Amino acid sequence: MGIDEHDAPRRRDLAAMIVPLGRALMAAELPVLRAHDISMWGYAVLLALGERPTRSQAALAAAIGADKTRVIPVLDELQDRELIERRPDPADRRAHLLSVTPSGKRLRESVQRDIQRREERLLSRLPPGDRAAFLRSLQTLSDLSPRRPDKAKT
Amino acid sequence: MGIDEHDAPRRRDLAAMIVPLGRALMAAELPVLRAHDISMWGYAVLLALGERPTRSQAALAAAIGADKTRVIPVLDELQDRELIERRPDPADRRAHLLSVTPSGKRLRESVQRDIQRREERLLSRLPPGDRAAFLRSLQTLSDLSPRRPDKAKT
Repeated sequence: MGIDEHDAPRRRDLAAMIVPLGRALMAAELPVLRAHDISMWGYAVLLALGERPTRSQAALAAAIGADKTRVIPVLDELQDRELIERRPDPADRRAHLLSVTPSGKRLRESVQRDIQRREERLLSRLPPGDRAAFLRSLQTLSDLSPRRPDKAKT
Repeated sequence: MGIDEHDAPRRRDLAAMIVPLGRALMAAELPVLRAHDISMWGYAVLLALGERPTRSQAALAAAIGADKTRVIPVLDELQDRELIERRPDPADRRAHLLSVTPSGKRLRESVQRDIQRREERLLSRLPPGDRAAFLRSLQTLSDLSPRRPDKAKT
């Protein structure tokens, strides 16, 4: 029904643009992370903890989109390196309170500075008005992200 | 060095916004794909072939970010269902020319219509001007996609 030889859609699927872009951005982070001797998950944990200072392991795993079993060895390593502190939650013996140490914050800040410097090269391809709208839109859409549906409003 | 208790960055990392958003968009596609009885990779192949009508299997795998070994069973299934046609390339016996059949195009169009309808709900959260700039920026950045890092400057 009206499908011509090229049948170009009015726009590409969001997912078909965003997923490969995300993969490319992650790949671009790898050398930076390697240079700072931190894993992708380790950095994700430092970022997630930065956003909300203390938090249970289960909530943290959900926030970064990982299984809890995947997060635990990451936390162990970060704790061994004194980048985070982990202590039992006095309010709930089964949970832990997590926080980033000052040296964890310094590392997170250096890594982020280098990552964002690379990202700026990409963003510099956008006209300044589009750049602002793009970042604003991304922030809006990622806050709506159905990964944490109940937290979207907190 | 000026790191305060909250040390919020001026902006979040692009990757930290885009990767989870991509995951959420893929998750939102699953019920649509299931309803149309097509896999995520199958749909990715139909989309990729749509953009450039014929292409070798290796190039196709690279275009959708998959291993060639992962793509071959997907192509087999699509061919069995007469959604694509695959024939040896007369110019290069080791390669194949691939094309989407009319019924493959119809399926792709239905799936895409449903996927984009859901995506529109998300996009409707953006002010109209931001929406246009967001889509334009995504298109620009995904065309620069460092999946092919050497091509970033071409």
